[in-house]
Amino acid sequence: MEKSKRIVIALGGNALGNTLPEQMKAVKITSRAIVDLIEEGCEVVVVHGNGPQVGMINNAMTALSREDPSQPNTPLSVCVAMSQAYIGYDLQNALREELYNRNIYNIPVATMVTQMRVDENDPAFLNPSKPIGHFMTLEQAKVAEEKYGYIIKEDSGRGYRRVVASPKPAEIIELGAIRTLVDSGQLVIACGGGGIPVMLKGNHLRGASAVIDKDHASCLLAEELDADYLIILTAVEKVAINFKKPDEKQLDDISVEEAQRYIKEGHFAPGSMLPKVEASVRFASSKPGRTALITLLEKAKDGINGKTGTRIHL
Amino acid sequence: MEKSKRIVIALGGNALGNTLPEQMKAVKITSRAIVDLIEEGCEVVVVHGNGPQVGMINNAMTALSREDPSQPNTPLSVCVAMSQAYIGYDLQNALREELYNRNIYNIPVATMVTQMRVDENDPAFLNPSKPIGHFMTLEQAKVAEEKYGYIIKEDSGRGYRRVVASPKPAEIIELGAIRTLVDSGQLVIACGGGGIPVMLKGNHLRGASAVIDKDHASCLLAEELDADYLIILTAVEKVAINFKKPDEKQLDDISVEEAQRYIKEGHFAPGSMLPKVEASVRFASSKPGRTALITLLEKAKDGINGKTGTRIHL
Repeated sequence: MEKSKRIVIALGGNALGNTLPEQMKAVKITSRAIVDLIEEGCEVVVVHGNGPQVGMINNAMTALSREDPSQPNTPLSVCVAMSQAYIGYDLQNALREELYNRNIYNIPVATMVTQMRVDENDPAFLNPSKPIGHFMTLEQAKVAEEKYGYIIKEDSGRGYRRVVASPKPAEIIELGAIRTLVDSGQLVIACGGGGIPVMLKGNHLRGASAVIDKDHASCLLAEELDADYLIILTAVEKVAINFKKPDEKQLDDISVEEAQRYIKEGHFAPGSMLPKVEASVRFASSKPGRTALITLLEKAKDGINGKTGTRIHL
Repeated sequence: MEKSKRIVIALGGNALGNTLPEQMKAVKITSRAIVDLIEEGCEVVVVHGNGPQVGMINNAMTALSREDPSQPNTPLSVCVAMSQAYIGYDLQNALREELYNRNIYNIPVATMVTQMRVDENDPAFLNPSKPIGHFMTLEQAKVAEEKYGYIIKEDSGRGYRRVVASPKPAEIIELGAIRTLVDSGQLVIACGGGGIPVMLKGNHLRGASAVIDKDHASCLLAEELDADYLIILTAVEKVAINFKKPDEKQLDDISVEEAQRYIKEGHFAPGSMLPKVEASVRFASSKPGRTALITLLEKAKDGINGKTGTRIHL
């Protein structure tokens, strides 16, 4: 029998909706696509983003502090932790239900609270770039800047959003636990929201005010778990160069070298397609036989069967 | 070599403080007591309560809904999930740090998001009894009743608190993952806040508006993991009969039968010592050789060495 393919799948926080009812719908659709991969015989590990959710939780904790002065403001790292359970609980239930609906009873689902070490000297701390929370009007943005000292940026013509530092993931603290569960046949949700950002201070792990990019986090996890595939889900079926220009070209199967050249030529938007292609290049170049796939959620299965999506490999 | 003792330890939510700074102090003290047990050669699994924390998170989510009408109210089950990560993240870090400070590097720490199935016909749903959140004055209690429809009760002369249903735990959904991690030598934090309460609806697990008692949850976990000890930590060194009366008597070593008689005689306060003694009786009577210990956090080590605390066994 062929060895089953191990896949780390990176799911966008935006695809999980902005409210709990939206999330509960989204996780159903997500679960169908993931269980499709499991039915193909793949071992799957799920990493998800948390941009809207961690912003929402942060807003809730801030609202509480205003109403109850005995409650100090909650650090962003703690909000990331909370977002892992907020999303993981729903997602693991939807996965369990989809597995059961297809009479697959031997794959338990588990969510691991995961910390991710970052480097305190990471230059990202000097240049906050990761949008979190909901979109704001210019007026709301001004209030948020003045009242909470948030750093606000305009986001791709869609409105204004708070931005926070997004340092590179350096080490998955709970890697051993994740590996043990994956090796024992569990469907594991880990490194949610890119992982809780922590910095090493002697024997202490101190929370960092940051949100780690989930594409980079899933790349690190995929390398550490010796995965065959890293699947980065996004809003388009294939990555394009000259995006939205007359000579736009969709990419099917490209080498790491080609991808690196396109990055250098500036084809991919920072904070959007760029981290996905960067993470893909890093994973694919880490070892022969490793393939990164960027595609739509509902095309994941066709993607690993070579039918669609953009595949990047050595 | 003697087989190492497996211990499930139940930690009170109240002992973890009402705010994050209080929690960060509390988990340090807690971690010292737990690592003491590990240095004695014990395998430890940690269950914690979440009364103040789940109330605080619920208040935060309610405050958000008032400020941002696009955010519907967050179900209590989701708040329990968030409390597992809110507490687990801090607790697992403090445990890791204490282990490292004592040069113990081979015991990784992990927090599992844990769901607990409850029976939808559990009579507890008709009689909310579990206090959550902070204490309120009579005036604040009246506002909370009118404004949010909360059920408020007076709590042992200490003020008014919201009460919610506290059904009995029936099944730990993620038991397989917890067992796998414990068996692989991890120090696991699981069933936080008694577990996320869910009810089985076909293949779906639906969140229940409840908070499960962590003593009963830890008893179930201890049985399922075939633990040797269930340690229930509390605010007194030993359980007493005729508590605060002239003939008060502290209990050292009692049989399940004695404990059952004292329960029947009404010696233990509901919502306080009663669930601890009930959970102890259930665990101790589930199999010969199983011992339940009720004592202070800082006496846990002396307790398992038979020096103090109240021990209950067959």
